[in-house]
Amino acid sequence: MTDSENYPIPEPGPNEVLLKMHSVGICGSDVHYWQHGRIGDFVVKKPMVLGHEASGTVVKVGSLVRHLQPGDRVAIEPGAPRETDEFCKIGRYNLSPTIFFCATPPDDGNLCRFYKHNANFCYKLPDNVTFEEGALIEPLSVGIHACRRAGVTLGNKVLVCGAGPIGLVSLLAAKAMGAAQVVVTDLSASRLSKAKEVGADFILQISNESPQEIAKKVEGLLGSKPEVTIECTGVETSIQAGIYATHSGGTLVLVGLGSEMTSVPLVHAATREVDIKGVFRYCNTWPMAISMLASKSVNVKPLVTHRFPLEKALEAFETSKKGLGLKVMIKCDPNDQNP
Amino acid sequence: MTDSENYPIPEPGPNEVLLKMHSVGICGSDVHYWQHGRIGDFVVKKPMVLGHEASGTVVKVGSLVRHLQPGDRVAIEPGAPRETDEFCKIGRYNLSPTIFFCATPPDDGNLCRFYKHNANFCYKLPDNVTFEEGALIEPLSVGIHACRRAGVTLGNKVLVCGAGPIGLVSLLAAKAMGAAQVVVTDLSASRLSKAKEVGADFILQISNESPQEIAKKVEGLLGSKPEVTIECTGVETSIQAGIYATHSGGTLVLVGLGSEMTSVPLVHAATREVDIKGVFRYCNTWPMAISMLASKSVNVKPLVTHRFPLEKALEAFETSKKGLGLKVMIKCDPNDQNP
Amino acid sequence: MTDSENYPIPEPGPNEVLLKMHSVGICGSDVHYWQHGRIGDFVVKKPMVLGHEASGTVVKVGSLVRHLQPGDRVAIEPGAPRETDEFCKIGRYNLSPTIFFCATPPDDGNLCRFYKHNANFCYKLPDNVTFEEGALIEPLSVGIHACRRAGVTLGNKVLVCGAGPIGLVSLLAAKAMGAAQVVVTDLSASRLSKAKEVGADFILQISNESPQEIAKKVEGLLGSKPEVTIECTGVETSIQAGIYATHSGGTLVLVGLGSEMTSVPLVHAATREVDIKGVFRYCNTWPMAISMLASKSVNVKPLVTHRFPLEKALEAFETSKKGLGLKVMIKCDPNDQNP
Amino acid sequence: MTDSENYPIPEPGPNEVLLKMHSVGICGSDVHYWQHGRIGDFVVKKPMVLGHEASGTVVKVGSLVRHLQPGDRVAIEPGAPRETDEFCKIGRYNLSPTIFFCATPPDDGNLCRFYKHNANFCYKLPDNVTFEEGALIEPLSVGIHACRRAGVTLGNKVLVCGAGPIGLVSLLAAKAMGAAQVVVTDLSASRLSKAKEVGADFILQISNESPQEIAKKVEGLLGSKPEVTIECTGVETSIQAGIYATHSGGTLVLVGLGSEMTSVPLVHAATREVDIKGVFRYCNTWPMAISMLASKSVNVKPLVTHRFPLEKALEAFETSKKGLGLKVMIKCDPNDQNP
Repeated sequence: MTDSENYPIPEPGPNEVLLKMHSVGICGSDVHYWQHGRIGDFVVKKPMVLGHEASGTVVKVGSLVRHLQPGDRVAIEPGAPRETDEFCKIGRYNLSPTIFFCATPPDDGNLCRFYKHNANFCYKLPDNVTFEEGALIEPLSVGIHACRRAGVTLGNKVLVCGAGPIGLVSLLAAKAMGAAQVVVTDLSASRLSKAKEVGADFILQISNESPQEIAKKVEGLLGSKPEVTIECTGVETSIQAGIYATHSGGTLVLVGLGSEMTSVPLVHAATREVDIKGVFRYCNTWPMAISMLASKSVNVKPLVTHRFPLEKALEAFETSKKGLGLKVMIKCDPNDQNP
Repeated sequence: MTDSENYPIPEPGPNEVLLKMHSVGICGSDVHYWQHGRIGDFVVKKPMVLGHEASGTVVKVGSLVRHLQPGDRVAIEPGAPRETDEFCKIGRYNLSPTIFFCATPPDDGNLCRFYKHNANFCYKLPDNVTFEEGALIEPLSVGIHACRRAGVTLGNKVLVCGAGPIGLVSLLAAKAMGAAQVVVTDLSASRLSKAKEVGADFILQISNESPQEIAKKVEGLLGSKPEVTIECTGVETSIQAGIYATHSGGTLVLVGLGSEMTSVPLVHAATREVDIKGVFRYCNTWPMAISMLASKSVNVKPLVTHRFPLEKALEAFETSKKGLGLKVMIKCDPNDQNP
Repeated sequence: MTDSENYPIPEPGPNEVLLKMHSVGICGSDVHYWQHGRIGDFVVKKPMVLGHEASGTVVKVGSLVRHLQPGDRVAIEPGAPRETDEFCKIGRYNLSPTIFFCATPPDDGNLCRFYKHNANFCYKLPDNVTFEEGALIEPLSVGIHACRRAGVTLGNKVLVCGAGPIGLVSLLAAKAMGAAQVVVTDLSASRLSKAKEVGADFILQISNESPQEIAKKVEGLLGSKPEVTIECTGVETSIQAGIYATHSGGTLVLVGLGSEMTSVPLVHAATREVDIKGVFRYCNTWPMAISMLASKSVNVKPLVTHRFPLEKALEAFETSKKGLGLKVMIKCDPNDQNP
Repeated sequence: MTDSENYPIPEPGPNEVLLKMHSVGICGSDVHYWQHGRIGDFVVKKPMVLGHEASGTVVKVGSLVRHLQPGDRVAIEPGAPRETDEFCKIGRYNLSPTIFFCATPPDDGNLCRFYKHNANFCYKLPDNVTFEEGALIEPLSVGIHACRRAGVTLGNKVLVCGAGPIGLVSLLAAKAMGAAQVVVTDLSASRLSKAKEVGADFILQISNESPQEIAKKVEGLLGSKPEVTIECTGVETSIQAGIYATHSGGTLVLVGLGSEMTSVPLVHAATREVDIKGVFRYCNTWPMAISMLASKSVNVKPLVTHRFPLEKALEAFETSKKGLGLKVMIKCDPNDQNP
């Protein structure tokens, strides 16, 4: 982990803003880069600032920036395309291969005092949305993108596999998009009780059931198979269970990532027209997330279980690594440690 | 209005069920047929039983019916296709020109003691959903279909023109589908206060503003133009306001119907790619509505303002005609007048 | 194989028509049932008439049939739902678990002299569409449904894996839906030359390349990765190649079916948002196929390589089993053996 | 009209390319600006270069341009967003209010010898696509965007109102996207005969029929109502005819623009769920158009009826103004006047 405090304060380019950082959540990927220096093909080759779930205050704007001004409180979308390529043009900029993305090597993240970012990917927060809610838009976006790709719609029954932070934001997003009933599965009873607290209609603790048995139990709880399954564990048997569990004509979305090759009952999925879709981060989620937070339609506050000042970042990472609690927030502004 | 009590109890066909009726809401179209004997091309040529917002209990099932049995409490979808035509095959059966539809001449409605209906269009109610909620699925379906055609999605801002029963169910459906903020407009302050009670984020009382002024006020309330407008009045100036008000790339759905020819700023709509879509009744809404009611995600109960036993149906229609209250319920079961 | 000629001429029900059969194509599944008596969970337990790619002439209509009359030449959609269930209501009737389907046990097929069928699933052929074209709508429908599920659209580059009859109809459907360039792969040079003849822009003969190598060759031929891959072999390595080959944000459709469990690079698919979709038969394809055939926009005639009269059905099946040629047609009308 | 020859050769910015122009088509809007100095709210306030249907050769690339190099032949997409706003992010950049657009005041067009443009909106032409085909991608894009918004799909019947250049490219696009039969209407027999030559299945010369009569004639020609109508005239009665003519559940796309307020049978459209959609220019069409031209799937060459060297631009505009022929091409390269 880099000692970000010693970096010089950067100067924003014409389309950038300089931000005084306020709250930065720790993500599993941050911990992984910290511990292992790589995730798949992304390898940290030089010191890299971590952090990509963040919010702060604009302190300086580039010469071409019109929609923001110093003093504006903003949430930061960490992925900002570098080029107007074919993916950007069709509105799927998350697939742009040259995209800048905070804390994905070689791009620095924003766990620091001052940080500059593409102004078009900084979104003004209404007064009634806190900095921490602003930082939590990043994980929430994963849930929104997954549920949107799944086509979650009014009255749906939804299975969410995994009750970690991503499982919980998928639950929140599904309910906000009109899901009638959501089942959350996990190995851990304590994680499941958090899921229940956050809004799960049913929880199912997995021990050593076969994928087919899990599917059957889910159907039993819901009264019918869920139209949508959001798989957040990446575990092969859970993916298999997701296929067996999903209603014919429904969709399984893969959010959790496991080993490169996976053995799945593809014929079972294909002949029931259960679509299998993955997600790569997200796109076009910040505006809708801010609307939902501003209107109090989604409550992400219960996700934050720990807070540390930036000086205690190491302790924060240790806490996150141990899997204690859900979301650890690092408070970057020494003069304002409020949520 | 026909004295339905003297009809003989019908015998269900192989794919039908006989129902003991419980609750039937009065719709504006019922009142219109009662008063005028016609709506557009639909003309009442012989005595016709009114009523199409209904629920009851199965008392007899046809020989081929598998999914229902006597004693089941059900909500009735009043439109049941007679033929498997091109529209049915693609899942838009509401457009089938030969569809049976309760209380649209020449088809009888279900405001009576006993009524038989296509079993596939009777949906079992869970124990925690009341008969009146079951009957209210019909108007709610109009709102769901309108919002679905509009593509209401997470975080949307929505304008609903008109605070009558259809405006209110559109409001409920929009919120349930993830709308962040809904503005409801009407001429009547009392109707608007009901809208506020039911969940409107903003209300706007219209007096003699121009369509452009209305659009400007809506934008002022929401902070930006709504992505979706649901027009429930059919008034020309309101439709015009809907076009001016809707965000570029958004959708205006026409639910209210006015005069056949309407003068609209079509160039304004076209060059901003504001789509104009109508709705004809609804399709595929009962299952999702039941899911939402069972999970308490939508609350339609405040819509019912008056109740009358079937014997006082005339009084019920007079009340509805006067525009007092919102939804008038007729209770058909002399032994159970509960909601 | 059942000697269908000795069956009595059936009497059509009220919604059925009786058909004098004209042309019936042999499908791989017919050969499989004939040889093995089962496909997966579908087991032939009593003598079953084969055949489901068929056309004929109406000789008698049921009492409720309005859109057909004796003398009409029709193509037969072999799947006709028995119930108006949830899948039928949303226009995906192919997923209805109780659907009648010709020559899927226990339902008889139409390789016989006289056959009755649900009239709503018999489609009148225009004068300029031959009986054999009418019979070929069935395999063509598999291609159409696959390409439609894939979202093939104007200018797309498409990879079709497998140059058997289903690969070829997928090729035809893709081109008709606006694909600019289609690559077809196969092990067999002779099958590939047929693909070229039918309209493939590129062909690629596979020998022992790895899935990644195949993907690279496809990209080389097209100049970029195909937005859509239609996999028609069911072979594990071909499915893997399909995932590697497909453009980020694109779709892989599984038409060919292999072993129940398949090992696939799911992370590779997921992180590039390559959707994996299966198809189960088809729905809503006959009307569009007839339009295309009538306007000469699609040419299926080159698919027919052999013809046998019904008396030589055994020989026809032997020919089909040997994999000689592409489509073997059985001519059921002794008085008219024309195409 | 500005004498573009006297402009200094511009210097490309970092993301721009400098082009030696080759072929520029004259559009009705060019003629209109030339004659009237305004179109609606767009007013020419200072000398403006006309031209936006263009192709040329890269002669210089900006410092950040990677995908193009001097010598590349390119087609120019005239609209290039200036900001990454909400519309760009979702892939509908044509709706961006601050977009640069050639020859829409105050932005200069490209009817000149040398012209610089955003490199991301210049698309390399394959060797087998001519400069004129490249220039014609602009009008073709209008047709593609209209047909895509209409959802034209395999086997559709389509009505195109108007046989001018936009009607013809809509016809071409509809056929390329799988339409089975297209009817084109117009007042002029000579324009209709060009439509027939370009691929119309049916033509219908309008004289003084009522909108309902036109609708009936169209249905008569096609055998059923068209699922899609592309209205390219902007004439009120033609828009009305489009509504009456379109199949229930279908779509009417407004391409032609008439007077601001239009009187339309909105109830008729709404109760049959005929959607009314407009188009504003286009987005994401150049790559697919190039693919189609390269694979010879679309033939736009017959659209060009006149050619003039740049020196005779005035004569070219006079020809276009008189409505002689279809598309007038201005050849900007004195050394290469080939197509």
